[in-house]
Amino acid sequence: MDFRIVAHLVGMVLRIQSVLILPAMAFCMATGEQKSTRAFFITLVIAIAGFMLLGLMRYDAKRRMYIKDGFVAVAICWIVISITGALPFYLSGTIPSFLDAFFESVSGFTTTGASIIADVEALPRGMLLWRSFTHWIGGMGVLIFLLAVFPAISGGDNSISVMKAESPGPSPGKLVPKLRQSAKILYTIYISLTILQILFLRLGGMPVFDCVVNALATAGTGGVTITNASIAAYGSVYVDMVIGVFMILFSINFNLFYFMLVRNFSAILKNEELRVYLGVIASATVLIAVNLTGTVYHSVPQALRYAFFQVSSVASSTGFSTADFGQWPTFSRILLFLLMFMGACAGSTGCGIKVSRFVIFFKEAKRSLYRVVHPRSVELVKMDGKALDKTTVQAVNTYLVTFILLFGTSVLLVSIDGFSFETTVTSVAACINNLGPGYGMVGITGNYSAFSAFSKIVLSVNMLLGRLEIYPILLLFSPRTWKRI
Amino acid sequence: MDFRIVAHLVGMVLRIQSVLILPAMAFCMATGEQKSTRAFFITLVIAIAGFMLLGLMRYDAKRRMYIKDGFVAVAICWIVISITGALPFYLSGTIPSFLDAFFESVSGFTTTGASIIADVEALPRGMLLWRSFTHWIGGMGVLIFLLAVFPAISGGDNSISVMKAESPGPSPGKLVPKLRQSAKILYTIYISLTILQILFLRLGGMPVFDCVVNALATAGTGGVTITNASIAAYGSVYVDMVIGVFMILFSINFNLFYFMLVRNFSAILKNEELRVYLGVIASATVLIAVNLTGTVYHSVPQALRYAFFQVSSVASSTGFSTADFGQWPTFSRILLFLLMFMGACAGSTGCGIKVSRFVIFFKEAKRSLYRVVHPRSVELVKMDGKALDKTTVQAVNTYLVTFILLFGTSVLLVSIDGFSFETTVTSVAACINNLGPGYGMVGITGNYSAFSAFSKIVLSVNMLLGRLEIYPILLLFSPRTWKRI
Repeated sequence: MDFRIVAHLVGMVLRIQSVLILPAMAFCMATGEQKSTRAFFITLVIAIAGFMLLGLMRYDAKRRMYIKDGFVAVAICWIVISITGALPFYLSGTIPSFLDAFFESVSGFTTTGASIIADVEALPRGMLLWRSFTHWIGGMGVLIFLLAVFPAISGGDNSISVMKAESPGPSPGKLVPKLRQSAKILYTIYISLTILQILFLRLGGMPVFDCVVNALATAGTGGVTITNASIAAYGSVYVDMVIGVFMILFSINFNLFYFMLVRNFSAILKNEELRVYLGVIASATVLIAVNLTGTVYHSVPQALRYAFFQVSSVASSTGFSTADFGQWPTFSRILLFLLMFMGACAGSTGCGIKVSRFVIFFKEAKRSLYRVVHPRSVELVKMDGKALDKTTVQAVNTYLVTFILLFGTSVLLVSIDGFSFETTVTSVAACINNLGPGYGMVGITGNYSAFSAFSKIVLSVNMLLGRLEIYPILLLFSPRTWKRI
Repeated sequence: MDFRIVAHLVGMVLRIQSVLILPAMAFCMATGEQKSTRAFFITLVIAIAGFMLLGLMRYDAKRRMYIKDGFVAVAICWIVISITGALPFYLSGTIPSFLDAFFESVSGFTTTGASIIADVEALPRGMLLWRSFTHWIGGMGVLIFLLAVFPAISGGDNSISVMKAESPGPSPGKLVPKLRQSAKILYTIYISLTILQILFLRLGGMPVFDCVVNALATAGTGGVTITNASIAAYGSVYVDMVIGVFMILFSINFNLFYFMLVRNFSAILKNEELRVYLGVIASATVLIAVNLTGTVYHSVPQALRYAFFQVSSVASSTGFSTADFGQWPTFSRILLFLLMFMGACAGSTGCGIKVSRFVIFFKEAKRSLYRVVHPRSVELVKMDGKALDKTTVQAVNTYLVTFILLFGTSVLLVSIDGFSFETTVTSVAACINNLGPGYGMVGITGNYSAFSAFSKIVLSVNMLLGRLEIYPILLLFSPRTWKRI
């Protein structure tokens, strides 16, 4: 590993973060939250000191950055940003244990929304704003933001390895030849959609503060809220629908919005992942509504309303809720559990395994079943009308198995705590897929505070594994990585 | 599909089956179980009528059999043998519902051991013998038996496609150039080991009938017993150890026994799968014993004894028990749950995904992590000192993902019944991995009788999927298969 280049990147991320905490700090100053203001100020000083110290290190800007260093840098940056992001919670006394604050911060930046806080309504508003803001920052990726803003690392190779490590999905599409330009377009879409959602919520009469925090949490497909009852607290069909639809918008490939802007509608129609994703959401909504009608809800429209919101929330890996779906019949619970793994579309802020990987896998499985009986056949796997090369198909397969095995291993580690089978399995599923709530103890009405320190670390690693698509974090565990070049 | 050749094979299987029910029928006649004798007799008549009718069909013995037809024939043969195997249970009135009798029969032949019977001790002894005998038949595969006995289908292509479809593991090794010879060697080892176990059990003072049925169920890694308390009923350390060790012997690659006979010890030492399998069993035993000491058992030797037996039973996919491990602490339960999926060694009577597949996958995953950061590297995956070709590695990956997806889909289908999360998930896991008992309602003290007819069919398909390694059964669902050639 080239420690200098990684240190340089960490320094830049701290520089960004010192800017990003300013809005929340300003809010605390304006509303007179003294403790919170002080906590943000100390965090600011630490972040500034950090990037200034790291800035003292000599760094050869012309030196080629290896993909591996890009991956490792991304992993380390996310850990650093989670640590400094935890400081406001800890220093303000909002979360007395630093590990808990770290868990909450990782959960924020990875857009998970798993919380150790039992009563969010007791939190200072500045902290609530910061919590939702971490989702928003994490949703698009701090480093893609970096890419858009700083010219320093935007030279060819360097930035592509960073973007490759941080972009979700099997193959992040480049919109325009220049990566920096792509990043800017993506961020513009992201900001515009967020503003649009704030306006829509405001039109429904939601208080401004609520509009902002809920939109930030939706945009990042994060899912923390400022009410203990999540979105159910608003009890409004309008709010349900707006958030339900925006969760889907933020969990489809952002390239599609760009295609819409440049009026390339055929590219949207050709997109198989989108068709499958919307198809699954529609089918799951209907199936769950059927399962709920007569058992949980009396009328079909009511069942459809709650089914749609929960399906949209789980499929997009957001984690908002308007009903305690952990108490729903087993069929609905299992279907939602499986949707956690399916995840959102590649190139969105959503997490999970990603729909496109499953689409590729199903095509490959069909081909391979055919190959079992016709060993000499040559059939190509196609996606969106283009043939996929073998390496991509194989990488998808390996990714799926690795993901499942990491899930299994984590379940075993968390099981040491001795909570129920359901709690153990779903807590890991909800963290590695960056959803947030699971069933049992970690259900909608519960939280993650009762886990041991060890499990909290395992679950934090899970959240990072899920958000960074495994490899950057796995590389941290490889001894080869830590050899100095 | 070439219906004639499939019909011919089905006829031959019925011919074998009419022979295989003779021992149980003779036992019933000797012990004066009139109802059972009558049931076996009617079954015999049906089987004979079946193969005579199918024998009337013209069949060109020289015609080349396609791999696909071999696969489909295997799947259909297993379904037919399960149906005729269910007749004795049904006709004797032991199991009043035919679907339940079919479930019990599929569970027997697939060596699962999942039962719908609450009180096995109330069953006639002839039926108990038949139940265990189905495990023994299924363990080695009816068709491999066919191959060993009948010269008719032993011409090159035909038998290899049958053997490929029925042999467990990624690549069934040929022991000697002639397949028929290989099949004979395997069956000799199988019979010898079974007799050896009967002798060992008898030495411990177990009644002869018990020795026979328990050895038959161990040999097939099946797991049905003749006592409601399973092997715990004998309350003997000696019995525990004998069965514990034999479960492992029957779940390692039978080729290794052949290598031992021909004194090719280096081939045994080189076998990576064996090393990993025994290593996992040893580690799991120690970990579970640590987890049980002080919580379930007072002394370390006691914890080790029960941990070893249960680990051996689950890893080998047998399903015997000496303790109600569904009540053990979560860590032990989750570890055993994960072992269900790991399964036994390829080329044994054990089921599950198979250790060798995981060994291959881990090597591929390591290589692929390396490839992420060094895209141009060429590193080969080696197993037992030999390089594996890309197709094998890819097939293993695809198999793993397909298996997991079929598991997920089945869980969803079974969840319609509305049993608990744990019952739903583990019942499918116990069936698709051909183990037998799960947790919750389908735990050691429970059974599968409460499931709906639909779920019983889904679980039966799962057992067949697991035992025939997916593809033969999947092909039955492909419309292409049913086109006449």
